Amino acid sequence: MNANQHPATPPPAAIPADVHCAQDYETLASRYIAAPTLAYIAGGSGRGVTAAANLASFSDLAIVPRLLRDVSTGHTRRVLGAQPFEHPLLLAPVAHQKLAHAEGELACARAAQATDSGIVCSTLSSHRLEDISRLAGPRRWFQLYFQPGRNATLDLLRRAEDAGFGAIVVTLDAAVQAASLDALQAGFRLPADCVAANLRGHENLSSPVLAGNDSRIFQGLMRDAPTWRDLDWLMTQSHLPVWVKGVLHPQDARDLQQRGVAGLVVSNHGGRGLDGAPASLRALPGVRAAVGASFSLLFDGGIRSGADAFKALALGADAVLIGRLQLYALAAAGALGVAHMLKLMREELEVCMALAGCPTLDDIGGDALMPAAPLLP
Amino acid sequence: MNANQHPATPPPAAIPADVHCAQDYETLASRYIAAPTLAYIAGGSGRGVTAAANLASFSDLAIVPRLLRDVSTGHTRRVLGAQPFEHPLLLAPVAHQKLAHAEGELACARAAQATDSGIVCSTLSSHRLEDISRLAGPRRWFQLYFQPGRNATLDLLRRAEDAGFGAIVVTLDAAVQAASLDALQAGFRLPADCVAANLRGHENLSSPVLAGNDSRIFQGLMRDAPTWRDLDWLMTQSHLPVWVKGVLHPQDARDLQQRGVAGLVVSNHGGRGLDGAPASLRALPGVRAAVGASFSLLFDGGIRSGADAFKALALGADAVLIGRLQLYALAAAGALGVAHMLKLMREELEVCMALAGCPTLDDIGGDALMPAAPLLP
Amino acid sequence: MNANQHPATPPPAAIPADVHCAQDYETLASRYIAAPTLAYIAGGSGRGVTAAANLASFSDLAIVPRLLRDVSTGHTRRVLGAQPFEHPLLLAPVAHQKLAHAEGELACARAAQATDSGIVCSTLSSHRLEDISRLAGPRRWFQLYFQPGRNATLDLLRRAEDAGFGAIVVTLDAAVQAASLDALQAGFRLPADCVAANLRGHENLSSPVLAGNDSRIFQGLMRDAPTWRDLDWLMTQSHLPVWVKGVLHPQDARDLQQRGVAGLVVSNHGGRGLDGAPASLRALPGVRAAVGASFSLLFDGGIRSGADAFKALALGADAVLIGRLQLYALAAAGALGVAHMLKLMREELEVCMALAGCPTLDDIGGDALMPAAPLLP
Amino acid sequence: MNANQHPATPPPAAIPADVHCAQDYETLASRYIAAPTLAYIAGGSGRGVTAAANLASFSDLAIVPRLLRDVSTGHTRRVLGAQPFEHPLLLAPVAHQKLAHAEGELACARAAQATDSGIVCSTLSSHRLEDISRLAGPRRWFQLYFQPGRNATLDLLRRAEDAGFGAIVVTLDAAVQAASLDALQAGFRLPADCVAANLRGHENLSSPVLAGNDSRIFQGLMRDAPTWRDLDWLMTQSHLPVWVKGVLHPQDARDLQQRGVAGLVVSNHGGRGLDGAPASLRALPGVRAAVGASFSLLFDGGIRSGADAFKALALGADAVLIGRLQLYALAAAGALGVAHMLKLMREELEVCMALAGCPTLDDIGGDALMPAAPLLP
Repeated sequence: MNANQHPATPPPAAIPADVHCAQDYETLASRYIAAPTLAYIAGGSGRGVTAAANLASFSDLAIVPRLLRDVSTGHTRRVLGAQPFEHPLLLAPVAHQKLAHAEGELACARAAQATDSGIVCSTLSSHRLEDISRLAGPRRWFQLYFQPGRNATLDLLRRAEDAGFGAIVVTLDAAVQAASLDALQAGFRLPADCVAANLRGHENLSSPVLAGNDSRIFQGLMRDAPTWRDLDWLMTQSHLPVWVKGVLHPQDARDLQQRGVAGLVVSNHGGRGLDGAPASLRALPGVRAAVGASFSLLFDGGIRSGADAFKALALGADAVLIGRLQLYALAAAGALGVAHMLKLMREELEVCMALAGCPTLDDIGGDALMPAAPLLP
Repeated sequence: MNANQHPATPPPAAIPADVHCAQDYETLASRYIAAPTLAYIAGGSGRGVTAAANLASFSDLAIVPRLLRDVSTGHTRRVLGAQPFEHPLLLAPVAHQKLAHAEGELACARAAQATDSGIVCSTLSSHRLEDISRLAGPRRWFQLYFQPGRNATLDLLRRAEDAGFGAIVVTLDAAVQAASLDALQAGFRLPADCVAANLRGHENLSSPVLAGNDSRIFQGLMRDAPTWRDLDWLMTQSHLPVWVKGVLHPQDARDLQQRGVAGLVVSNHGGRGLDGAPASLRALPGVRAAVGASFSLLFDGGIRSGADAFKALALGADAVLIGRLQLYALAAAGALGVAHMLKLMREELEVCMALAGCPTLDDIGGDALMPAAPLLP
Repeated sequence: MNANQHPATPPPAAIPADVHCAQDYETLASRYIAAPTLAYIAGGSGRGVTAAANLASFSDLAIVPRLLRDVSTGHTRRVLGAQPFEHPLLLAPVAHQKLAHAEGELACARAAQATDSGIVCSTLSSHRLEDISRLAGPRRWFQLYFQPGRNATLDLLRRAEDAGFGAIVVTLDAAVQAASLDALQAGFRLPADCVAANLRGHENLSSPVLAGNDSRIFQGLMRDAPTWRDLDWLMTQSHLPVWVKGVLHPQDARDLQQRGVAGLVVSNHGGRGLDGAPASLRALPGVRAAVGASFSLLFDGGIRSGADAFKALALGADAVLIGRLQLYALAAAGALGVAHMLKLMREELEVCMALAGCPTLDDIGGDALMPAAPLLP
Repeated sequence: MNANQHPATPPPAAIPADVHCAQDYETLASRYIAAPTLAYIAGGSGRGVTAAANLASFSDLAIVPRLLRDVSTGHTRRVLGAQPFEHPLLLAPVAHQKLAHAEGELACARAAQATDSGIVCSTLSSHRLEDISRLAGPRRWFQLYFQPGRNATLDLLRRAEDAGFGAIVVTLDAAVQAASLDALQAGFRLPADCVAANLRGHENLSSPVLAGNDSRIFQGLMRDAPTWRDLDWLMTQSHLPVWVKGVLHPQDARDLQQRGVAGLVVSNHGGRGLDGAPASLRALPGVRAAVGASFSLLFDGGIRSGADAFKALALGADAVLIGRLQLYALAAAGALGVAHMLKLMREELEVCMALAGCPTLDDIGGDALMPAAPLLP
């Protein structure tokens, strides 16, 4: 294990006293995560342009309070796919969670069950998907990366089906991933004990052999990148609803909808895909407009508070995924921390709903928002 | 009394020599108010996004000077409700004023009378409303929070009527209030001697009992939040004109106007309500447009100078309320400080009017403003 | 003489070696001017909002270079009023120039003559207008403040006529002036030897006596502020063309044009009038549109380079006035410094003209500018 | 040789270990280039306003990823003029490359050949054009400044033809160049051994003799600036296609297109021409709109990454030129560094293409971009 991966302090048994809101887990992250690891988790690809844009985009919008509305029967329930959810906050599929805590995804699974939260288990989890599934409660989905070779992909799919996950979320936006310059500079390397547990035993397929004029990108890394044909194949193979994660362009959204996917996740991979991609929130209204009001749409990218979640919902998301905060809370206090973070964020969302006069998620519409920008043109 | 509540220096008997404009009372506040208390007073809810937006919004606008107009008969008089006011600067209802000065609201009342200012006494005043009323001069209104139980609300209403207040201002935007993170971090707690004097003897109603699936927000804090029915009831009970404070959405404004309220206060509770709500100034033009030119509209949220007041008036406010500056001036020099602050701000407003060629408040219109923003699209 | 008014170093006999462009005189000003005096000169009224806006406004605009145009017969000549000028850069009427250099306005007058520049002598000059006039060359105008009492005003007018000034520039935007907070904090006071030389012997008119309800602004300071009647009177009295300085609103511009003034100066008094007034450059296009293409329009407010001058000309100014840079150059190297600053700025303007393909001032139009702002909406 | 021109450390024999992306050569530049020289290379003219705008403009735009497109046959080939290029990244004509490395242009020529890159050799190269040509590979063009005297210009043209360059790129935007204030302050002077090798033996034409009223700019520096007549003459003389570099205004673009030039380079000379000119990227769409979709258009100004190149291509450029990064990589590791920088940038471009679903350059269109700006108006 690389020395620089050790947390600065051993994770405490209890919720830190100075966490007053969900985002405080981020504020305090450096207390629980060693600097190189934190650089890796916090960083976006390249110079982190998109990761920063994700965060900044929320401050362009204000939430308009409403008065005197009776919200005493309010709730946050919503059906996603065919499944009922207690609230629209899901744990995003984050890889390699042992980086933050030895219990990793197992702790997050427990927190999801304890808080009635949805959870999407990553292909690159550091525990086995079967073990995560057993702890994760009923609202568990499996995030799938196409593997180099259909057998390997099919193997993962069948295991997810067998383990009782309720849906497959195919991530399509990470065919090539540039490392974070900050993480490179901080000297981060994945520690030896942090392996993709689900992929053990998968044969290492040979890298493409490039001819003289071939591009390492086009003929190399992209040679096996999934195409429409692969998605079609997957959908015929899957017994579970298939969602697609990583959509930003309205035309892709329309095409995927027509292909019959169950829903989409508007996402730029937390700024870890193409550095320079738009903020997810910037892309959300266009995608919602493209697929119509009733098609299922999840969102991730920069959610740090219930107010952020509210804004994404008001712009058309049905629910949101929580990525980095999950890791920060995990590092700070294990399953307890993640559950606490989810509870805080849900209450923050409920406060926004209450004050914006929205007793249910369906009441959250675009008219609940105003530009936070200047008054006169 | 909590040690951290003690002012850093005992309040002086006289106006500080280095106060040159109303806002200087804010600049110098840390000299007179202990850090945790100042964090509480200055802070907005949560991360203070809305509190900061209030201040920033004024800098989007410039005031256009006019030439050669005769303003030698100029004045700042205006009728609000049916009551004549000498000028459109009112002391806002700020709770717990003993935090700033032992004389608290009594000092502010004296300052209001001395400067012919309007004053709105808070339900949560640290002195009794009857005592404040006696000192406050003729332009005194009472700010009312709905209490948990109509008897308690009615009791406050009747006491306010008996004490001779001229209007009731019902605050509706604070059903749930998140604490300021800054104040939490600074360790602020309300000192023991700082109690809501008007509520002494009110029975502590039991908190709602939550069932297993109930939300602490929807079924808890919001269970007793006022609704349209409560407002209707209040208006039938009140012998005084009823204003509503906390309006930001045009539709709420229209609905309240049709309900027959005497006027509205465009306000986001100084950024102490929903963190992420728009700047009050951002919301003002929409509300004015919704209620028409002649309906009464007050404004608060970020007023720090006569120029700020001028801008709010130009965008449709009939008068403005002064919150935090009131506390800062109070802490600095008691009644004298508050009176001085009001005098400075009134003269600042008059200078703006004189230079913008507006001898009366009715002459201040939207054409007195220009965007302070870039020249070309 | 107040100790804090003494320059930090005695002014050198020669141009500082590290002045490479006109604005460098500002960069180096603290080397030659004591801090309190510099705060007074550099400061705008109040918090300096407008003074800062003047500077910032220029960066909203870019100048578009043009190719292959023959500018070898280029020049900067222009007729202002009926008078031919070699170039459109005039020394603005800046009061109390002894603050910067013992020779004050006399040095600036010499510099104007040496560089074929126009100069506008201030009513509040620290040398007598007759002495300035003798040194100032043929393009000298006189800036007039209405005095408390028509006799005093008439006396100044006649002296200006007798001294051979070519035009009267009445400043109308400074009926009330708030001091700079920075200068107040720095403890600036006008030194005893810095008096308004032109006003010696003027009787001190009694201040207005205010009744109980009177406003110190409306019935006090504004009682004797000039009105349209005063301007009409002045125009009947003057044998010289009368310009008006301080115009920002298009309607004022139209009204003054119809009144028959010779021309206007778009100005916010360098941000020393109403703090919060728009940047002069922001107001310029509206004023130009109001008066039509052929009416005479000068500009001041934030000119620090030839590029700034070019932008003002492109937006409709016929010429520009240079205020603070005049003082900085004066402090740095007396008449020589001011002449050097003017020479640098003229060459900077000529470089802009050459590269934008404009051989004459008439070739500088709005199409020479582009927004410097973002690409896509 | 001036002492301050010596690099801080001798250039290493190998690629620096901490270069992870093309722009890192800029980040690390101060390690390899002495401060005054770096100020000269990095600086824009004057205050560097345009140089900074070049860089900032790219962050206004985001690149929208696309999903599932097959790019496995992707490539970056493009025909420019009649010549096939492997990729659209060319080395810009940068003068005086001995400032960065003793091998200067010779090293860059080798790097161009090694990476199949185009290279544009500067008139002001510190090695002779014939020597550069021999090493530069097949895609070499020659950048021409009009010389004072047609013979000298013709001599350069003929030498470029004889040396086998494939096109002439006439730079027209630098008739007058203001020095960088930063470089002046840093005390930069061109070292004695850094001469314009191509101009040795050219007679020094006498400077223009100015009459009393003549302008040093119009009648001096601009007397011999090229005009349309000179360009016409050059085009009749040249046996090579003639491109024009330095175009920003759409009308200039149209006029040059009609004159029959082979193509244009949208450029503001890296911010070293008119300080205050618009960012090149800001001007690009207007120029592309003016000349139509099929006319050849190169771009330079602020390219620091493959993403920047992608954005310029999406806004209408056919290829981009790399200026300052070339020098930084040259200083860091000679020919090897430049080749490495080009390889990195090409792969960065390919990653953007792959993730934006563009297998060829022709697939990169305006719909691949979104504003990176706020969501709501």
